Amino acid sequence: MASDPPVLLAAVTLLSAFHMAFLARRVGWSRMAHKILPPVVSGPPEFERTFRAHQNCVEFYPLFLVTLWTCGTFSSEVVAAATGLLYMLARELYFNGYIRSTKKRLPGFFLTLAALLLLSVLAVAGIARGILDKYLYTHM
Amino acid sequence: MASDPPVLLAAVTLLSAFHMAFLARRVGWSRMAHKILPPVVSGPPEFERTFRAHQNCVEFYPLFLVTLWTCGTFSSEVVAAATGLLYMLARELYFNGYIRSTKKRLPGFFLTLAALLLLSVLAVAGIARGILDKYLYTHM
Amino acid sequence: MASDPPVLLAAVTLLSAFHMAFLARRVGWSRMAHKILPPVVSGPPEFERTFRAHQNCVEFYPLFLVTLWTCGTFSSEVVAAATGLLYMLARELYFNGYIRSTKKRLPGFFLTLAALLLLSVLAVAGIARGILDKYLYTHM
Repeated sequence: MASDPPVLLAAVTLLSAFHMAFLARRVGWSRMAHKILPPVVSGPPEFERTFRAHQNCVEFYPLFLVTLWTCGTFSSEVVAAATGLLYMLARELYFNGYIRSTKKRLPGFFLTLAALLLLSVLAVAGIARGILDKYLYTHM
Repeated sequence: MASDPPVLLAAVTLLSAFHMAFLARRVGWSRMAHKILPPVVSGPPEFERTFRAHQNCVEFYPLFLVTLWTCGTFSSEVVAAATGLLYMLARELYFNGYIRSTKKRLPGFFLTLAALLLLSVLAVAGIARGILDKYLYTHM
Repeated sequence: MASDPPVLLAAVTLLSAFHMAFLARRVGWSRMAHKILPPVVSGPPEFERTFRAHQNCVEFYPLFLVTLWTCGTFSSEVVAAATGLLYMLARELYFNGYIRSTKKRLPGFFLTLAALLLLSVLAVAGIARGILDKYLYTHM
C-alpha cells in the first residue's frame, strides 16, 4: 500500500459530498415549488417522495463512505474510485425515479445496492488478507 | 503509532456498516409486515418505533465512527475495536428493545452511551498527548 | 504532507462529534419540556423546529467531515481546523436561531454554507494538485 494519501479516493469522496449537497438543494427547490416552509416535512406526494429520496441517500451515505474507503485502502483504489462514481450515478437514477413515482426508485436503488455489494466484497477480501498479513505473519 | 493501515479498526468499521445495513433492512421488513409503502413513515406504533430506532442509529453513526477512529488512532486500536463491537451489541439491544416498547429501548441506549463515553475519554486523552507531543515538543 | 496523524484535524473532528451529541441532547430536553415521548416527532411548533434543526445538522455532518478532512489533508490542516471551529459556531447560531423562529435559522445557515464553501474550495485545489503530482508527474 502506498504511504501517500489516496488522492483518487479523496477526489471521489469530495465529489460525492458535492452530490449530496446538490440532492439537499433539490429538496429545498421542491419546498419552494410546493410552498412548504420548514420545519414542515409533509405535503403533496411529489414533495414527500423527494424528501424521502434525500433521507434515504443521507441514511446510506456513511455506509457508502465506509465501504469506499475500506475497499480503496485494502483492495484497489482505482476500482473503489470507479465504483464510487457508479454509486453516484445510481443515486441520481434513484432520486430522479423516486420523484416521479415510488416504484421508479427501484432500478436506481438496485444499482446502488450492486455498487455497495462490489465495494463490500473487495473490502472484506482486502481486510481479511490484511489481518492475516499483520497478525498471522502469512505473506499472501 | 504504526504506519500501516489499522486493519482491526477497518474490520470493525466495515462490520458496523453491515450492521447498519441490516437495521435498514429490518425497517424494510417492518414496512412489508405492516403494508406501509414508502414514502409514508407513519403507521402502527410498532412500525413507528422500528422506524425511529433506525433513525436514532443513523443519527449516532457518524459520532460512533469519529470516536472509534480517534480512539483507535491516538490511543489503542485493540481497545477501540473491542469497544466498537460492544457498541454494535448495544445497538442491537436498543433496536430489539425499542421494537417491543419505547421504554425497553433504554438499557441498550445506556450501553450505547457507555461505549461512546469510553471511546471519547480514550480519544481525548490520546489527542491531548498527541498535541503536546507535536506542538509543545514534550515527550510523554 | 506529514506522515504523522493530523492531530489538529482529529481534535476538531472529535469536538464536532461532541457538539453533535450536545445538539441531540437538546432535542431530548425539548421532548421533556413539551412532554413528547419517542417515537413521536410532531408536536408544538417550537419542538418541531428543534427537531428539524437537529435533523439538518445530522444531514450535513458527513459533508462537513468530508470537506474538513480533504481540505486538511490536501491543503492546510491549520486552516481546515480553524474553519471547522467556525462551522461549529455557525451550527450553534443556526440551532439557537431555528428554535426561536424558522426565519432566524438563516444567518447561522449562511455562515454554515460559507464555512463549507471555504473548506470545499481549498479541498478541490489541494486534490487537483495532488492528482497532477501523482499521475502527471508535475512538481507544482
